[in-house]
Parts: sequence; structure tokens; C-alpha cells
Amino acid sequence: MARDERGVTPQSEDFSSWYNELVTKAQLVERGPAKGTMVIRPYGYRMWELLQARLDQRIKDTGHDNAYFPLLIPESYLKREAEHVEGFAPELAVVTHAGGKELEEPLIIRPTSETVIGEMMAKWISSYRDLPLLLNQWANVVRWELRPRLFLRTTEFLWQEGHTAHADQADAMRETLQMLDVYAEVAREYAAIPVVSGEKTAGERFAGAVRTFTIEGMMRDGKALQSGTSHYMGTNFARAFGIQYLNQAGQQEFCHTTSWGLSTRMIGGVIMTHGDDKGLVLPPRLAPYQVVIVPIGRGDAAEAVQEAVRDLASRLKAAGIRVHVDDRPQVSPGFKFNEWELRGAPMRLEIGPRDLANGTALLAKRLGDEGKTAISLDTAPETLKQELEAFQAFLLQRATEFRDSHTKTVNSWPEFTEVVETGWASALHCGQPNCEEEIKAETAATPRCIPNDGAPDTGTCIRCNAPSAYGKRVLFGRSY
Amino acid sequence: MARDERGVTPQSEDFSSWYNELVTKAQLVERGPAKGTMVIRPYGYRMWELLQARLDQRIKDTGHDNAYFPLLIPESYLKREAEHVEGFAPELAVVTHAGGKELEEPLIIRPTSETVIGEMMAKWISSYRDLPLLLNQWANVVRWELRPRLFLRTTEFLWQEGHTAHADQADAMRETLQMLDVYAEVAREYAAIPVVSGEKTAGERFAGAVRTFTIEGMMRDGKALQSGTSHYMGTNFARAFGIQYLNQAGQQEFCHTTSWGLSTRMIGGVIMTHGDDKGLVLPPRLAPYQVVIVPIGRGDAAEAVQEAVRDLASRLKAAGIRVHVDDRPQVSPGFKFNEWELRGAPMRLEIGPRDLANGTALLAKRLGDEGKTAISLDTAPETLKQELEAFQAFLLQRATEFRDSHTKTVNSWPEFTEVVETGWASALHCGQPNCEEEIKAETAATPRCIPNDGAPDTGTCIRCNAPSAYGKRVLFGRSY
Repeated sequence: MARDERGVTPQSEDFSSWYNELVTKAQLVERGPAKGTMVIRPYGYRMWELLQARLDQRIKDTGHDNAYFPLLIPESYLKREAEHVEGFAPELAVVTHAGGKELEEPLIIRPTSETVIGEMMAKWISSYRDLPLLLNQWANVVRWELRPRLFLRTTEFLWQEGHTAHADQADAMRETLQMLDVYAEVAREYAAIPVVSGEKTAGERFAGAVRTFTIEGMMRDGKALQSGTSHYMGTNFARAFGIQYLNQAGQQEFCHTTSWGLSTRMIGGVIMTHGDDKGLVLPPRLAPYQVVIVPIGRGDAAEAVQEAVRDLASRLKAAGIRVHVDDRPQVSPGFKFNEWELRGAPMRLEIGPRDLANGTALLAKRLGDEGKTAISLDTAPETLKQELEAFQAFLLQRATEFRDSHTKTVNSWPEFTEVVETGWASALHCGQPNCEEEIKAETAATPRCIPNDGAPDTGTCIRCNAPSAYGKRVLFGRSY
Repeated sequence: MARDERGVTPQSEDFSSWYNELVTKAQLVERGPAKGTMVIRPYGYRMWELLQARLDQRIKDTGHDNAYFPLLIPESYLKREAEHVEGFAPELAVVTHAGGKELEEPLIIRPTSETVIGEMMAKWISSYRDLPLLLNQWANVVRWELRPRLFLRTTEFLWQEGHTAHADQADAMRETLQMLDVYAEVAREYAAIPVVSGEKTAGERFAGAVRTFTIEGMMRDGKALQSGTSHYMGTNFARAFGIQYLNQAGQQEFCHTTSWGLSTRMIGGVIMTHGDDKGLVLPPRLAPYQVVIVPIGRGDAAEAVQEAVRDLASRLKAAGIRVHVDDRPQVSPGFKFNEWELRGAPMRLEIGPRDLANGTALLAKRLGDEGKTAISLDTAPETLKQELEAFQAFLLQRATEFRDSHTKTVNSWPEFTEVVETGWASALHCGQPNCEEEIKAETAATPRCIPNDGAPDTGTCIRCNAPSAYGKRVLFGRSY
């Protein structure tokens, strides 16, 4: 595969190689020593911190408290909810020895924490006054992956997992959908990913859930990335762990529980939604460096330029802009320009002696307008704040247009198979698992979701002509 | 053991029972299902978040970047540094099976991350231009504990671990001491714990370190709590993992590395430094709720009171005060007063119809002045901000006086044995490991540190009369 001078296969040539090479070349992440694990480097981790800060704020705004539950779960806990253990059994990592001895009961590294949190909820809840119980934790989880992929599917990943208990189905469903909305908002406003919110079909549900909702983003290869999920568990876990409460009439009832999670996978989504042949394109709200300044000039002029750059950087910082000065003496400006394009900095400023004499700097945006514009040093903080906001909006708009132009309403099987080659097909479906399986076997496409805002529609299944289910269309696509 | 109406053994009767009962009764933490693990409940986790926010800021201010390294480390990595593996071997938790199969090489759940980070540093560093490399991670670690104790010694705990690589010893030692200072500052300014900074003796060093520094806090039973450590590793890990750089003269050299960590143990330190017979006493800067408002009055008056309380709470919140309104209808004001004393809220405000008519609220502080004071509702935000600052300062002062009055310079063995019953002894010591061992066997006291600010002093060993080492006195005490 041909690589350009940046050492990364162009996206347009081979999307998969582009992704794998770019994430390491841009210093976001690296393979860890144990199979399928990843090392998140500072440039990638900063994106996660920025996303995390916003999501944490929204989780707290909506009344949830953070807590922390143990990494290690007794094997017997996982077995209490039959569907849950069946779903997770193939992916578990098991601790059999500790403190120099074999353990009496093996411990599982949490693949998710419904079981241990369910056990604690049962202790903490006794009356309707204790409800709703709204908890969240930021944690690492381990799911053994056969085909790991950095950020997208790693043996260990970081996430938040919310777990809540409610008095009845209505309150639990309100919570499930509220947190899905929070995810969609954060994806849209921060990651600039115009996700589609909807419900999973039965075959794609979380192990142990009654209903699973998802946000799905479209990547630039037309595939879908499941980017966050929110589950209504009914009373399944409440029955398995004895999460009960005394209602106002003095009777014992089972709680209705929910769980919802969003992970470091979202970073992979940002890369694949916005990146191009030149490398990453980072949304300003998640960019570790929103503006990179490259001082130009050697010899006598260098000192004056450096002083002006220091001054500008501190004024930008004071205005709340994340700025980085690339003053490495050993590499050329051209090398730096390429590197910061590859690493996706939204804005680059060049300042040389001539710019300084004019009281300006040259602004180059990562995407959008061609060429460079001279901006006034005096008003640079305000100018850049506006430019960054416009850039954030531009990325969302561009991604929305891409998604919409790659999503088609289809009413025939040949149309379906063609559309899912490069995007999503909105089709009527019978809702039968075996029909889903056949579609997947033939086209590699799966039902991504039944969109929440889908218009009422009925008819016959795109594949088998049986009567359609769900009362609306289903979005199908290939996925990560 | 007698418990009062709060259900907690008084501190003055039995410190250990008081601690164990209080941490769960105050809803900070609970035992997890797997041996030695803990569930950190929202009230305890919020303290950790507040501490974490401040420490993270200081870590970033001092030039470090956050990153994330894998939880699972190949067994062979740990064996590369001989002292390191010897120190940690008895405490390791081992994953032998994953994805339904036995692993070819067992994986260790990180007890600390020097090895895996060392491996990555070796990849990332090539020239002197890459130095110093200043990394930090927030993570969970697992060390199998035979005698677990909530917060203080748990099988899994949360911490940050900093790992840095430098060109030479001088730079690495500067880093080691700088981060010790950051720890001491956060302990003092946030946890209100007047820690003593100093170096560990050889017998108490971190496994694989050349020099280990510590901050030691005195708990209210006179024992010491090691509350954070900072290590200079020399080139031990650099040699084991090949962390090398090309110096300016074009020669390969080994890096000098450091590591430093502070954990959820600090929450235990806060409890044991400030708590009393009535329960927790939380420093305002780490208190989840700085002010708890209890509305008083039933019937007709209740509504007016509730409205005034809502208004006051929103004004306090706007002033940056963490406020909680305890409006539970099913429990009495007296019950609430006891509960918030037990849970350590620094300030409590009572508002009833009579207060409202006077435009005042009754302020009760958790410690310090006796009785309650009427404060004006109009100026409550400013008044409480001042009171909270004063309370924070008061706790630090009280803890400093306690520490100083329980630390004695001793020059004879009988004096030594008496002093370490209830506090710390500052003594000359020969520095011989076997002499340290004998002291420990006889008195349960160990050298906590050689204080950094200790005055020059020499003479003969407090125990064996051999010539003293270190050129200054050593602090001895019993410890957690």
C-alpha cells in the first residue's frame, strides 16, 4: 500500500490501513504488551479528558452521583442473570491466583458492573423514599477481544457506566431515554458527530436488557459506529439480585433498573468521522491544541519573533484557547505544518519577521477555506475564538451532509444491497431474527437501530416480504 | 464495646472500632464482595473527586501530561527488575484464563506500572530532546492484602502514579522532591493534614528505588499514616527496560527515572486526622456538602420556610458553596442534626418560622465554638464563605498542635518506648536494618522518615549506642 511522505496510507485508498496507521502516527495511542490492550498517549488521553469533563458535568446535572465499585467480581455473581452470563462468558478474563495462592472462587475482571452494583443496590434500597437511585462510575473494563482494534474494540477500555434503580417502568424508561439524549447531545456538540438515536432490535440487545437504545454515528467509509448505549433492564437484574423496595402502600416490589455506557471508542468515532487523507481533523472542543503557533525565521530576527509568539500565546491562553507553540529548533516549518495537519490541529498560526512588521499572523485552517489569511495580532484572541466556533459548526454540518447523502430510503432488495456498500439503508423489516441473520450473511449489514424520530411506516419486509414490524423503518448498515 | 445512639463506638474508647464503624455508617464506603475490595459510595467518592481535581491541576501545572497504560501486564515484565518483583510477588493477582482459554503467559493485574510504562518509555525516548518525559496516570491498582482495612489498605485502590524520565540524576532528584512538595501542599491545603516530608530509610524503600521520600501524617491515635510517596529510581528501571537516549555529544546514556503516587488512602487520613467521638469532621475543601440546611417547622409555616430555604440554597450555590438541603419529611430535625454531625458537614444551618421572621438562620459549626449563632439571611453567602475558610484553617492549626504536642525529641530508650505509645519520637539512629527490626519487634514503632527539614544532629543510636547515621534525627512511630 502506497504511503505519502507522512507515512500514512491515504484514507481514500484504504480506510482501514489509514485508521490503523494514523492513530499511532498521530501519537494518540499504541498497542499495549498484552493482546488487544492499548496505551493511550497524552494527545489521545487529553481528548478523552475533554469529552469526559463535559459528559461528567451532564451526568451530574441530571442528578447522578459518581461512585466506585470493585474491579473484581465473584464468578457466581455473573451467573445469577442467565442471559447476562451467556452474553459475556466468551469475553471474560479470570483471576484464579492471588497473594501467592489459588483462589477458592475465581474472580472475574468486570466486563460491565450490573452484577456487583445490583448486589449493592439491594443493600441500599429499602423504601420508595430511596428511589430513584442514580449512580455512575468512571472505570476500566475488560472484554477479551478476538479481533482487537485500537479505540474501537480493545481488551481493556475506559468508560463511564451509569446504573439506576426506579420504582416503576415509566420512570426507568424516562431515565433510559434521557441518558440517550445526553449521549446524543455530547456526541453532536463536542465530537461534532450527528448521531442517530434509536432502539436496537432484539438480536442486538445488551445481554440481560429488555430494551436497548443506541446512538449510531456514520464514519467516512459509510459504516456505522455504535457510540453509546442505554438499556432498560426491566426487573431482570432486580430479581436476580433482590433489588426491592417497600412501596407507599407497604408492599414489597422489585425495582426497574437501567444502565448506560459511553467509552473511549468515541475517540475512534471522532477520527473516522472527520479525518481525511492528510490525517486527523479534530473538533475544537476536543482538540488538545486548538491553535498551534509556528514561529518562522532564523538568526537575528528569531528573538523578536519568539518574544511576539510568547506574548500572543499567553493572550490566547488567557482567552481560554488551548494553544501550543511548536518551537522545536531541529525541524523545519514545513515539517511542522505537515505534522500538525496530520495531528489535526484545527488552526495553525505562522509568524515570521515580515508578519511581525505588519502586526499580523498567517492563519491556516485544517479544513474549509483554502490558503492562508493574515489576521491582526491585536485582535487575534477574538478572531480565533470565532474561527474555532465556526470550525466546530462546520464539522458538524459537513458530517451531517455526509450522513444524509449516504442514507437512502430503499424499497427493493437490489437497492438495499447497493446502498449498504457505501452507507445506510432505511428499510422496512419483518423483525425476525433469522431474516436479520440472512441479511447480514449476504450483505454484512445489520440493523443499526429503529430511529426514535422515524415516521410511521408499514408494508412488507425488504428481504422476505413478510409484514413489516416496528411501525416504522429500520436503519441498516455495516458497522465496526 | 459500647456504642452511643449513633451506632458508632466513641473514638476515645476504641480508635479502631470507631474507624471501621464510622466509614460505613457515614456512607463513605463499604466492603466489596471480593476479599479486601471496597465500594466507594457517593459521599466518599465526592471527597476523592475534590482531592483529585486539585492534585490533577497541580500535576498539570508542573508540566506533566496524563496518559493511560494497560491494567494487565505480562508476568515476564515484572521479573525484569529483580528487587521490584521480589517486593511485589506476594501481593499479585494473576489472570490465567481469558476468552475461554488458558493464557500462554499469565497476566498480572498492575500493582503499580513502572514496568509497562518503562517498556513504553524505551520506545518513545531516543534523544536528549525527548527529555524530560513527564507522565501521570489516574488508575486502579491491585495488591493482595492479608489484613485489609477500608481506604487504608484495600486489595484494589484508586490512585495517580506519576512516571518520569530524565537526562541525569540532578534533574530526576529535582522532580522527585518537587512532587513530594506538591503532595505535602495538597495534604496541608486541602486535607488540612500537616504532614512531615522526609526520606525513608533503606528498609522502608519502594521495591526497586534508590531513594524513597514520603509524607507522613499523624492520626488522632498518635500513629503515622504514610500518605504519599515519591521515588528516585536511579537507572534501575532504565537498565531493565532499555530506557536510553542519545546525549548532545552523540553517546547513548541511560535515563534516570522517578515515580510518585497518592491514593484513596488519603481519605482514610482525613477521617483519622480530624474525626472525633461524634463522627467525621470534614475539611471544607474536601466536604461534599460544606453547608447543610435543615428546615424546621410543620403545617402552615412549612411552606414559607421551604421557600426561604430554596432561595438561600440557590444563593449559597451561586456563591460557590456546596450546599445540601435536608428536607426529608420522615425524620426529625434532631435526627438530622446527629446524622450531619456524624457525616462531618462543616456547617449546619437551621431555619424555622421564628428565624425567618427575624431574617436570620441559626448556624452550628461542627467543631470549635460551642452553641449556635444567628446569622443574617441577607449576608449569609459572605458570612459562610468566611466561616468555611476559618474552619479550614482551624482544622489545620488544630492538627498541627496535636502533631507537635505528640512529637518528642528523645535521648533515652525508656523515653523512646513511652513516647511511641501515643505519638512520634525524634531520635538518633545507627541506620542498621537489624537495629530497626529490633525496635519494631519491641515497640511496634518503625522509622517513618528522616525529615527533610531536620536540623543537623549526630551522636549515638537510641537503641544500640552505635554512632548515629544520616547526620540528623529520625522520626519513629507506629503506623497504619
